[in-house]
Amino acid sequence: DHYIICGYGRIGKHICHMIAKEVPFVVIEKNPKVIEEIDKAGFLYLEGDATQEEVLQKAGIERAKGLVSVLRSDADNVYITLTARGLNSKLFIIARADEEHVEQKLKRAGADKVVSPYLIGARRMALSILRPAVTDFLELVTPTKHLELQLEEVRISSKSDLVGKTLINSQLRKISGAIILAIKKVTGEMVLNPPPDYEFEPGDVLVALGDRESLAALEELAFGRKKLKDFL
Amino acid sequence: DHYIICGYGRIGKHICHMIAKEVPFVVIEKNPKVIEEIDKAGFLYLEGDATQEEVLQKAGIERAKGLVSVLRSDADNVYITLTARGLNSKLFIIARADEEHVEQKLKRAGADKVVSPYLIGARRMALSILRPAVTDFLELVTPTKHLELQLEEVRISSKSDLVGKTLINSQLRKISGAIILAIKKVTGEMVLNPPPDYEFEPGDVLVALGDRESLAALEELAFGRKKLKDFL
Ligand SMILES: [Ca+2]
Ligand SMILES: [Ca+2]
Repeated sequence: DHYIICGYGRIGKHICHMIAKEVPFVVIEKNPKVIEEIDKAGFLYLEGDATQEEVLQKAGIERAKGLVSVLRSDADNVYITLTARGLNSKLFIIARADEEHVEQKLKRAGADKVVSPYLIGARRMALSILRPAVTDFLELVTPTKHLELQLEEVRISSKSDLVGKTLINSQLRKISGAIILAIKKVTGEMVLNPPPDYEFEPGDVLVALGDRESLAALEELAFGRKKLKDFL
Repeated sequence: DHYIICGYGRIGKHICHMIAKEVPFVVIEKNPKVIEEIDKAGFLYLEGDATQEEVLQKAGIERAKGLVSVLRSDADNVYITLTARGLNSKLFIIARADEEHVEQKLKRAGADKVVSPYLIGARRMALSILRPAVTDFLELVTPTKHLELQLEEVRISSKSDLVGKTLINSQLRKISGAIILAIKKVTGEMVLNPPPDYEFEPGDVLVALGDRESLAALEELAFGRKKLKDFL
């Protein structure tokens, strides 16, 4: 149930620091100098070439939950994705794409998610020209290391008092103070800005905006630890 | 009132395509081969070195609204930022930072906004591991080229019927269907998840989530073209 991070370059390093407190992971890196740095940071690592099947196997790819391929070369990331997908069909694979048209190759090789730093960087800059307040909003609410989360996700358990109630009847906004921005259904479908008559189902993942207290109250309700009447 | 884009590399190119329909701009690029490409794309350009004062002046920096410095070298971006700030104190400067610790240098040189593609890319990948539904939400609502905008910003004019009304009394959600996620005040302060008794002021920028129809209704109200009672 761990993650495998292939490559501890500028991107890989940031990722490790961001996920370190929440999920277990192992880094694969072949540069001995970089290995020293990983060791100092206190992260679990494996010295070797992530494009080699044996190295991925040694990193426990068969039982891993996900793999992040962030080497500098697009060709290497495509190769690792292809190899990793062959070794574990259920793995969640995230890959980096630099050049254009690599995204399609990575998807065909089996990547679940492709991130292009240049494209995302360009989009952020364009957005700050075209929609400055939206940009400020997104930067404020996006969870980052060491910051209070404003945008959270909470899964509704089958024991939750919310199950079978509608958004309006639950009075969720009034009770918790959090706004429900979207609901991701078990089917993967995303309901944006859900209507007042939306009826909660077990497994729904609520995407909510609120302060720490609001989000904590929402969790209590979603996990079934508290009932709606406990808040009245 | 135009923008100056320094450098038509992978990032500069994406930015130009994203903003082309909404704002006027001129690209500064010194590589003749790349100039050919810009010419083909039909964008306004200036052949020259953006680190040179005269070139920035030729691009109309004194009357420009903003400048985007996205050369490959951090040193060049710092230099351009410093020069540009010296030529126009009101310019909105966005700069790219690759290496760590360059962000501070760029801010000190006068950049209003610094974007690090590697850091943003890493954050997106970490978020898709830690908060997959939040990631899906952000990708769905972030305005991108050719997609319907779900997340918009609307400034309240002094003629708007909303001025002096509270969020709850305006019944904005019911009338427009859009949710107000945040309000950016004229002071620059950001009110996240505004409370029901929030009172609208002229100049408030509403950050709203909604479909095209909802956002259009919100604009009519904010611009003062329609009154609240017109929707009842
Ligand atoms: Ca935050
Ligand atoms: Ca959109």
